Amino acid sequence: MCKACDYTIHGAQHHFGWDNSLPPALRVAPGSTIEFHCHDSSAGQLGPSSTLQSVIDLDFGKINPVSGPIWVDGAKPGDVLKVTLKGFAPKVFDGKGFGWTANIPGFGLLADQFTDPALCLWSYDPVSMEPAMWGKSARVPLKPFCGTIGNALAEPGLHSVVPPRRVGGNLDIRDLTAGVTLYLPVEVEGALFSVGDTHAAQGDGEVCGTAIESPMNVVLTLDLVKDQPLKTPRFTTPGPVTRHLDAKGYEATTGIGPDLMTAARDAVSGMIDLLTRQQGISAVDAYMLCSVCGDLRISEIVDMPNWVVSFYFPRVVFE
Amino acid sequence: MCKACDYTIHGAQHHFGWDNSLPPALRVAPGSTIEFHCHDSSAGQLGPSSTLQSVIDLDFGKINPVSGPIWVDGAKPGDVLKVTLKGFAPKVFDGKGFGWTANIPGFGLLADQFTDPALCLWSYDPVSMEPAMWGKSARVPLKPFCGTIGNALAEPGLHSVVPPRRVGGNLDIRDLTAGVTLYLPVEVEGALFSVGDTHAAQGDGEVCGTAIESPMNVVLTLDLVKDQPLKTPRFTTPGPVTRHLDAKGYEATTGIGPDLMTAARDAVSGMIDLLTRQQGISAVDAYMLCSVCGDLRISEIVDMPNWVVSFYFPRVVFE
Repeated sequence: MCKACDYTIHGAQHHFGWDNSLPPALRVAPGSTIEFHCHDSSAGQLGPSSTLQSVIDLDFGKINPVSGPIWVDGAKPGDVLKVTLKGFAPKVFDGKGFGWTANIPGFGLLADQFTDPALCLWSYDPVSMEPAMWGKSARVPLKPFCGTIGNALAEPGLHSVVPPRRVGGNLDIRDLTAGVTLYLPVEVEGALFSVGDTHAAQGDGEVCGTAIESPMNVVLTLDLVKDQPLKTPRFTTPGPVTRHLDAKGYEATTGIGPDLMTAARDAVSGMIDLLTRQQGISAVDAYMLCSVCGDLRISEIVDMPNWVVSFYFPRVVFE
Repeated sequence: MCKACDYTIHGAQHHFGWDNSLPPALRVAPGSTIEFHCHDSSAGQLGPSSTLQSVIDLDFGKINPVSGPIWVDGAKPGDVLKVTLKGFAPKVFDGKGFGWTANIPGFGLLADQFTDPALCLWSYDPVSMEPAMWGKSARVPLKPFCGTIGNALAEPGLHSVVPPRRVGGNLDIRDLTAGVTLYLPVEVEGALFSVGDTHAAQGDGEVCGTAIESPMNVVLTLDLVKDQPLKTPRFTTPGPVTRHLDAKGYEATTGIGPDLMTAARDAVSGMIDLLTRQQGISAVDAYMLCSVCGDLRISEIVDMPNWVVSFYFPRVVFE
């Protein structure tokens, strides 16, 4: 329960996909602070006792519910919604935070190479947010954020929640954590803001297609900015973004060539090769680990005709 | 002068482009430590008294000399050259380190938008490596590294130094700094290793096409790794890679869509818009600043059909 909040959006107040004809769950004045009870991206289909069969049985019609929408008084197309992220509180299952990471066939950067479903379940301290154990050998640092956060689109009809768009949505930017200010273009009256798809940890790229998917409560403040047009989302972080990961340095692999997508795939494949050889883990486990804590960076994008994409895996996980 | 070094490669011992028929400048046993006197990427065409005319007059036949090549005894195709980067010492001009950043027409991520030449000259303390002043308002943190480092290609003939390849070359990976171990595939007997294109600072992407280009001495050790095939370069960092930049957090902009290159261009354009508005600087100055200290990251590459590329600009530069 959030004492500093003006409103609470409960778990039942969610929707699947973006549609600007949805009735608002709430109408608020700019400056309001709201607590959202967010589902995980499976909408509860996966839980602490799930098995691989639960991944096989996933109903994709119930993927990625978002809580909302919120009508912000006075918001007009062309305005900017300023979202101040205040805090994240994981839902508690028997005293523990819960999360899941899966390889879902057909989804993910290396979907052609990893065709079988796989599931990793996580348990962590929801208060201290100490690194989560992965088997007996590895510890993954946590930093909760919201994977999906955005406004309704101007275009009428129902739009899939999967792709992010200029109004935000399934951005999966792992630095949208507590303390960050996010600016989102407004395309419809009232903005019709929603949030969900909370993650306990994710690397840049979310390469296997899933993070540490965890239901959480999110507290944030909504404000309006007028007369400052914005083409795509931007954000400001109050401080460092990777210090929970970087203390021991990184192993880094590269992909080099004229296509950034191929280079990204090569860099991640190279890291999977390295982790399986160095750590003796399976390729699909390495792939899922890369997704929750490794980072895709564009090292150079100017040395024609070959670009370099690097994948950074934090050594603290295994040290 | 490097007391712990076995050999010195002087500035005259350089070459333009990669060619496996070049005679080695030196033959060494694995384990040797070498100091290389590296030119800047203009081969001295730009210096502390250069003007915009010097950029216009650049002779591209003399771009990016690399020092070497070094024959490593026992290196065979299929081996891996292990390069331990020991240290970087900027060349001193009247007691100061010198660097240049330029917008070179036809080169750079936004070459279509920035068609006029531009030049920024840098002066810094070559010992303390304190952040370099940019005008009166900004300070750019420094962390020297080598932009070009690699082995000769198996394919005969002369190959342009501009594109990086699987044997390395113009990688422009800004984390190839002191303390890092780099692994490079060997394609020819002796490896024929060379290094150059030293930079005092650069962001991930090197978006305008140039970094803080500075002549430096580089000390490194060459070793061989047998029986461990490698497809593309990889490296290990001994510790954090961005703590010189991240203390005050970041401004971040995004590009969203089905093409990573377009998304990268949009993210950088968004940051240039933001910096010109917030800091009152010119667009081309913002572009060059982005190149020397801002980072291109792939935030998500799985939410079909739209990917998110983010550009992170360190707030410490203006705070």
